Amino acid sequence: MSESSNRSEERLSGAKVIARALQAQNVQYMFGVVGIPVTEIALAAQELGIRYIGMRNEQAASYAASAVGYLTGRPGVCLVVSGPGLIHALGGMANANMNCWPLIVIGGSSERNQETMGDFQEFPQVEACRLYSKFSARPSSIEAIPSVIEKAVRISIYGRPGACYVDVPADFVTLHANVNSIKCCLCPRRAQYQEAGRTVWIAVPAHSHGQGCRSRQPSELCGCSQVQIDICAEELGNNVKPAVTLLGDINAVTKQLLEQFDKTPWQYPPESKWWNILKEKMKSNEAASKELASKTSLPMNYYTVFHHVQKQLPKDCFVVSEGANTMDIGRTVLQNYLPRHRLDAGTFGTMGVGLGFAIAAAVVAKDRSPGQRVICVEGDSAFGFSGMEVETICRYNLPIIVLVVNNNGIYQGFDADTWKEMVKFQDAVTVAPPMCLLPNSRYEQVMAAFGGKGYFVQTPEELHRSLKQALEDTTAPSLINVMIEPQSTRKAQDFHWLTRSNM
Amino acid sequence: MSESSNRSEERLSGAKVIARALQAQNVQYMFGVVGIPVTEIALAAQELGIRYIGMRNEQAASYAASAVGYLTGRPGVCLVVSGPGLIHALGGMANANMNCWPLIVIGGSSERNQETMGDFQEFPQVEACRLYSKFSARPSSIEAIPSVIEKAVRISIYGRPGACYVDVPADFVTLHANVNSIKCCLCPRRAQYQEAGRTVWIAVPAHSHGQGCRSRQPSELCGCSQVQIDICAEELGNNVKPAVTLLGDINAVTKQLLEQFDKTPWQYPPESKWWNILKEKMKSNEAASKELASKTSLPMNYYTVFHHVQKQLPKDCFVVSEGANTMDIGRTVLQNYLPRHRLDAGTFGTMGVGLGFAIAAAVVAKDRSPGQRVICVEGDSAFGFSGMEVETICRYNLPIIVLVVNNNGIYQGFDADTWKEMVKFQDAVTVAPPMCLLPNSRYEQVMAAFGGKGYFVQTPEELHRSLKQALEDTTAPSLINVMIEPQSTRKAQDFHWLTRSNM
Amino acid sequence: MSESSNRSEERLSGAKVIARALQAQNVQYMFGVVGIPVTEIALAAQELGIRYIGMRNEQAASYAASAVGYLTGRPGVCLVVSGPGLIHALGGMANANMNCWPLIVIGGSSERNQETMGDFQEFPQVEACRLYSKFSARPSSIEAIPSVIEKAVRISIYGRPGACYVDVPADFVTLHANVNSIKCCLCPRRAQYQEAGRTVWIAVPAHSHGQGCRSRQPSELCGCSQVQIDICAEELGNNVKPAVTLLGDINAVTKQLLEQFDKTPWQYPPESKWWNILKEKMKSNEAASKELASKTSLPMNYYTVFHHVQKQLPKDCFVVSEGANTMDIGRTVLQNYLPRHRLDAGTFGTMGVGLGFAIAAAVVAKDRSPGQRVICVEGDSAFGFSGMEVETICRYNLPIIVLVVNNNGIYQGFDADTWKEMVKFQDAVTVAPPMCLLPNSRYEQVMAAFGGKGYFVQTPEELHRSLKQALEDTTAPSLINVMIEPQSTRKAQDFHWLTRSNM
Amino acid sequence: MSESSNRSEERLSGAKVIARALQAQNVQYMFGVVGIPVTEIALAAQELGIRYIGMRNEQAASYAASAVGYLTGRPGVCLVVSGPGLIHALGGMANANMNCWPLIVIGGSSERNQETMGDFQEFPQVEACRLYSKFSARPSSIEAIPSVIEKAVRISIYGRPGACYVDVPADFVTLHANVNSIKCCLCPRRAQYQEAGRTVWIAVPAHSHGQGCRSRQPSELCGCSQVQIDICAEELGNNVKPAVTLLGDINAVTKQLLEQFDKTPWQYPPESKWWNILKEKMKSNEAASKELASKTSLPMNYYTVFHHVQKQLPKDCFVVSEGANTMDIGRTVLQNYLPRHRLDAGTFGTMGVGLGFAIAAAVVAKDRSPGQRVICVEGDSAFGFSGMEVETICRYNLPIIVLVVNNNGIYQGFDADTWKEMVKFQDAVTVAPPMCLLPNSRYEQVMAAFGGKGYFVQTPEELHRSLKQALEDTTAPSLINVMIEPQSTRKAQDFHWLTRSNM
Repeated sequence: MSESSNRSEERLSGAKVIARALQAQNVQYMFGVVGIPVTEIALAAQELGIRYIGMRNEQAASYAASAVGYLTGRPGVCLVVSGPGLIHALGGMANANMNCWPLIVIGGSSERNQETMGDFQEFPQVEACRLYSKFSARPSSIEAIPSVIEKAVRISIYGRPGACYVDVPADFVTLHANVNSIKCCLCPRRAQYQEAGRTVWIAVPAHSHGQGCRSRQPSELCGCSQVQIDICAEELGNNVKPAVTLLGDINAVTKQLLEQFDKTPWQYPPESKWWNILKEKMKSNEAASKELASKTSLPMNYYTVFHHVQKQLPKDCFVVSEGANTMDIGRTVLQNYLPRHRLDAGTFGTMGVGLGFAIAAAVVAKDRSPGQRVICVEGDSAFGFSGMEVETICRYNLPIIVLVVNNNGIYQGFDADTWKEMVKFQDAVTVAPPMCLLPNSRYEQVMAAFGGKGYFVQTPEELHRSLKQALEDTTAPSLINVMIEPQSTRKAQDFHWLTRSNM
Repeated sequence: MSESSNRSEERLSGAKVIARALQAQNVQYMFGVVGIPVTEIALAAQELGIRYIGMRNEQAASYAASAVGYLTGRPGVCLVVSGPGLIHALGGMANANMNCWPLIVIGGSSERNQETMGDFQEFPQVEACRLYSKFSARPSSIEAIPSVIEKAVRISIYGRPGACYVDVPADFVTLHANVNSIKCCLCPRRAQYQEAGRTVWIAVPAHSHGQGCRSRQPSELCGCSQVQIDICAEELGNNVKPAVTLLGDINAVTKQLLEQFDKTPWQYPPESKWWNILKEKMKSNEAASKELASKTSLPMNYYTVFHHVQKQLPKDCFVVSEGANTMDIGRTVLQNYLPRHRLDAGTFGTMGVGLGFAIAAAVVAKDRSPGQRVICVEGDSAFGFSGMEVETICRYNLPIIVLVVNNNGIYQGFDADTWKEMVKFQDAVTVAPPMCLLPNSRYEQVMAAFGGKGYFVQTPEELHRSLKQALEDTTAPSLINVMIEPQSTRKAQDFHWLTRSNM
Repeated sequence: MSESSNRSEERLSGAKVIARALQAQNVQYMFGVVGIPVTEIALAAQELGIRYIGMRNEQAASYAASAVGYLTGRPGVCLVVSGPGLIHALGGMANANMNCWPLIVIGGSSERNQETMGDFQEFPQVEACRLYSKFSARPSSIEAIPSVIEKAVRISIYGRPGACYVDVPADFVTLHANVNSIKCCLCPRRAQYQEAGRTVWIAVPAHSHGQGCRSRQPSELCGCSQVQIDICAEELGNNVKPAVTLLGDINAVTKQLLEQFDKTPWQYPPESKWWNILKEKMKSNEAASKELASKTSLPMNYYTVFHHVQKQLPKDCFVVSEGANTMDIGRTVLQNYLPRHRLDAGTFGTMGVGLGFAIAAAVVAKDRSPGQRVICVEGDSAFGFSGMEVETICRYNLPIIVLVVNNNGIYQGFDADTWKEMVKFQDAVTVAPPMCLLPNSRYEQVMAAFGGKGYFVQTPEELHRSLKQALEDTTAPSLINVMIEPQSTRKAQDFHWLTRSNM
Repeated sequence: MSESSNRSEERLSGAKVIARALQAQNVQYMFGVVGIPVTEIALAAQELGIRYIGMRNEQAASYAASAVGYLTGRPGVCLVVSGPGLIHALGGMANANMNCWPLIVIGGSSERNQETMGDFQEFPQVEACRLYSKFSARPSSIEAIPSVIEKAVRISIYGRPGACYVDVPADFVTLHANVNSIKCCLCPRRAQYQEAGRTVWIAVPAHSHGQGCRSRQPSELCGCSQVQIDICAEELGNNVKPAVTLLGDINAVTKQLLEQFDKTPWQYPPESKWWNILKEKMKSNEAASKELASKTSLPMNYYTVFHHVQKQLPKDCFVVSEGANTMDIGRTVLQNYLPRHRLDAGTFGTMGVGLGFAIAAAVVAKDRSPGQRVICVEGDSAFGFSGMEVETICRYNLPIIVLVVNNNGIYQGFDADTWKEMVKFQDAVTVAPPMCLLPNSRYEQVMAAFGGKGYFVQTPEELHRSLKQALEDTTAPSLINVMIEPQSTRKAQDFHWLTRSNM
């Protein structure tokens, strides 16, 4: 019997069809938690060379997969079991959609012939994903899988990128179809003109005499005009009316703008009032930060910590930050020098993204530029959302340094003595303030529990030394637990809402 | 000025109105993660004596709050911030609804006057909860809060119990209303006749000559008739047609049935074929378990572990179990002797519930019968879903013993040597099987990181000794990390689907 | 070949399976508008003896089908095509759900293998019906149709009755299955204890000295206690707190109450203050109505019209009424003497129900008690919602007398002269008031266009005569177009909101 | 007191704020059915010069309003009451969304302070509109109305146009706000580059030797390449892979393409095989139609009717067509010579749109080019969906000629004799086929009932004469009821699905 006739009789399981369809769309990364009925899908994908990263909670898996979309421009996949597994992944879909990041969630679901009979984990999953996705569908047959996956990938990256959901009934996974009936679709090109999702605002002076413009909140911009660039027409003119609206991908539009500028060069007058105001503000900001950073009293404050970290960070590293003050202050002090090398809670202010984002960055870095490090700066409360993922980090030996900036609470906590005093006569269940966490939690031991390096740090010197060691050590991930003043806060802000306490 | 006139001018913030309304409904427990805009609500509730338990992830908080409803018959509250905070809590709502447990979720939401403008974490939250709740609403004013909360509590416990959602816009929290305009509603009584949620099936022999009946799956029942009891009329006759359907609360119905039986005593003939088949089956089951349990080879298997644990468990303890084999086997070996003292993944097969349930049980136990212990038996994969909650356990010093039955994976894992061999030449990212976790993870160190006791256990003797110590030690929570054979499985089952591997 | 083996090879189309499944559930009436892909379903149902009534708009079809559920206790079916056809039927589902009437909507949908590809009229129909139904599902195969239909029928009548939706993909209709694989389910009994849907309030005097109670709005009840009876536990105590709540079917509960009363007879003291107040109020109401009814000035007012109609109505007739004043006043004057013989806009205040309800009543009456008449009293605006259904009435020669109480508008209109004056110089598009309809519209000619009898009536004498003729004429339906004073209104009400103008 | 200070104290009702906000957005047309609580909105809009057209059913109102969006590029408004009123309008929203037509639906809703208490017609309306709209929201205050309406208008016309919903609680309508707090937003410009909604496919020959291309269904295109033009990036490459995809508004893209063609002129070789095949096909189509049209036997067939109508149609008229064969055949014979002058069931195949579309076209025509006529060609079944709107046509004296092509049924019906025979011995309820309507229904009398002209037509001569009269008569609308052969069908089609019977 000839080879070709053999081939024509080859039969593929639904799991393999899914894997092939994803491969045909250049999907390279899959994160998830296996279980009935999706384990076979993970195995089939891995067999075709797609990286499968097993996470400890679908929530973190969904955040990790979404970050891949941002980092590579191609959606990552989040693979989840039926019912609660899918529901745990809704956070990642919501976050991806809000941030305009491409993401594909593939969810197992109950067997079709059990539907309406109360099958195990039966749930209207396609419907449940509607609010969280640009596209949510179940292929009507195994043969329809490739076109639905092509559509999901295409929609996830075209226009404003976002999340898409593909539902896979349990019986699809093991059902077989003739290989010839499976037509994998061409892969949609990542159009050059569809790079960025959200609106970009450019402030331009309204008058030639150059009145200043505070480049912060569009709604505050006065005395200057604004140019709005968005790939989504419906957003043009939303909330405020810009002087000029440009519909298109930010990359394409910027390129065209720059070409025009090259033809008719123009520069903002360097001595204008606007520039001067901006420069002065930057200077005073820097001075205030520096003053705080230089404080030598112990425990340390945020600025001291970030100041020391910033000095040591490799220029090509990824910076992930999460937490309230930790993220807000970190944003202003810790700098990334390469594009798409910073990840944080983003537009939707999502807590729990930190370790998932760090894992995604590290996995992508392993493939793209081995040796690149990921620095994941976490508030202690933030770390709690997904701290168990340090096992994942250790299991895959990912080049991540987690830095927990530990103030014993959300916003602020108590020092150990105050805590002890408090619970001496009353049960903590009755008296512990809602924002307090256990003082002096040894988060670094959580890393050590899985074979990583842990550092407990109370002074700038210890911080310097442990970070140095962590950076030099390329054989294992590290976690540096940095104790700061439990009542430490952010420096006062011009805009009050930036100082209001957050998680 | 008289006191009463003073009183009439008292003004209450929305946060305080919520707390009062909850108190008026006898709500006693609140779990959550504080942040904008709900911190004030937690503070106000705590001030009125409602227990507030700060958790590390809204997911675990939602599971904890739902367990309170099951344990006390009165809904617990899960308090979450807007957007992602609420989305993280959908798992608990879904699980509560499927299990017919009362639960109230209170979610902060963005300020009303920012709606449709893309406010921070703006999301259609009431709509998002529709699929997961019996009732989902936003009070139209501060004055409307008490009646909406009364309605939520009432609906959560009447009929088939379930989850309800109450949305609280950020501006409500700090807005003030005159105390006189706030009318707290009477508390709906927990009707005696509305105790249980899900259908109860009673198998009765169809013929007087007593043909046997396998009392497992109603769909398998043959040769015998069935009586269906449900509080939900629509379920009567669902999927199968029972001989008799009884509409009503299981407690009320059973009481009436028993009263009738007392009048006309009847007993199932003790020597009937049916009884004999059942007894023999129980005997052979016991024997098979015992044989497995008595194996002395190392590493241990599930049955050995549970056998030793069962011997030491206090009769009044709560048993929480989570995992695939861990839960399935644990269910048959580990026994609870008091009603409503066992908690597990339940009808919806939800992973991630374990520590939340244990925390809820411990908090309730502290109030109801101090000294009572909670044994939380977790698979290692299961523990990963919410392992960071050990910090919560330590913070509140809860009487919980976590037992991690560790097989290095989901279903099954590799031993350390196999793992090392595997990653010698290839990156774990490329080759690690989707169901494998890091071998020999020291989960007990995670407990130790927060001041609890950790035990690493490889033999029955170590298991016995450490559990003994943990039970004797009433000053701190413990975690016993029990290494078992990574390929250990369940004994073969009559019903094949009970053996198929699970998470 | 034996007959039984022939039988075993018989193949049934999906359309026939649906028809058989409906028949097995004792469904007797189907209303709809045929088209792709549901025509075959209508044909198959009719072939099995189910009445199929072809309507002119799915909206009216859905109202008609829902009324069958109210009238017979068994749901009627509304059969609609995919996409817009289903969307037009949502009104009937909403209305049925609000009124707690059983209803089954069966909607064709696009072919499964075209899904996600933008098939003709592709729409997420199961999801779209969620808000409007107790149960919404698509059978996963032809074999699953009977059990899904059984479930839909069961849920529609058990507990609080309501609407259910069953989705039928186009390819199901013509696909064939072996007759042996089709198991029609037993029909759920209409439990005696599940007759009525909505809460019933009984006002009982609170004190033995018998203070009066205004038996209108529960929220107004003071000085007396209330007993609440509902089949839905969650409703007990909703909005107001009754003295006693009784959970159960109104019929069963009332029967038990009456049995108790029989044992311990008690009567409300006939000379109590409460009785006297009520009696006086009734007397003055009657006097006011009578005074208005006796006005001889032309055009007539509402009371005159209803007074004359009431005198002539057969005692066994169905009364359908629709409109604002038409319904509100009609309710107080036009009486039905048999239970379930009055139909109107109901709890949800739905306009457009009139002719559909009348058609349903007439079709049911034809089967149950031939000769029985249906009187459908419509405001002129109300008639416009579904006026084309007079063709349906004529086609099936239904014993309906439509009475249009015509005031040339919604609330109120203009007389012909005022109208002419108004449009003399300005286009009606510019000046016609939003509530005005064309004066002196000859609605009776619409009936005549389809072979029915039409009467144009301006005086009490003409009204008397034409109604007499219409009642005597059993060979054709009639429409009596009764002109009344365009500014005619309701008599003043104690409760202001009852007088406020409506549609 | 000065005028300006007077002005600053002016207070506006919510109804007036809505009217002003709509006016600021250049919204010119509103269709609806008034009632509580929206009557005041209609009055306020009319007062500001917005045309208000009172319809007889919200369903038809929603179709009319959507057509205005297509005809003018600016959304029309559909104004509806709460609950059922809104639900009736979902058809228009769905149809607008599918056809990418701008539409604003404004729905009254129950009073905010009654929410969750079961207020009259309380319904989650914003949520209910989600599936049918691009944007669905309730302004959070009267002050927020203008920005929400601006957003609705903007989103309805930008990108792929579609439907938007704005919810107005009853208490907003009469509540007053200070005029100074109301900021009407600038009107979003109708961007030149956002004209068309749906994909345009251009078939281009793949090879220079010019293989033929059947320019009908993209999926059938073989032997030739395709260019896809769409304003929605996500649609590029959907279902089929085009050779070239162009993202942008069809007008802008075409203009640029033509400019390029002008620079490098190119023409398809007039003697190529492809052209010849197309030309021959057109010729044979024409011949077949002509043959059918020239049949002189009575009753007439579709082609005869359309042939005679086509000869008499004014070149500038609007053509609306609705029905199965009526629309399908009408499309090929009846020609419109001006752009956007044809309206029919469209992409979603919606029945019930005919009269609403005709009314919208006539109202727009009155303003834009008085004297222009609207020809509305309806199947008899199609007419039944909204036939009562002839009252609306007569009330506003709109220049519409309705042509009912009457075959006594859906697909096909019976002649009068067959019908009589059928019901001689059996009740029509039992035996009337689901697709049959009453034979020889005199639809023209429905028009006459409201003062329009009615014609009953059975021969080509009568058709010619009555259409001539109708066109000459500019004082009243007309309806021509054209009887055709009840079994008349479409000529056989190359693509079978085009011949399959439809509604």
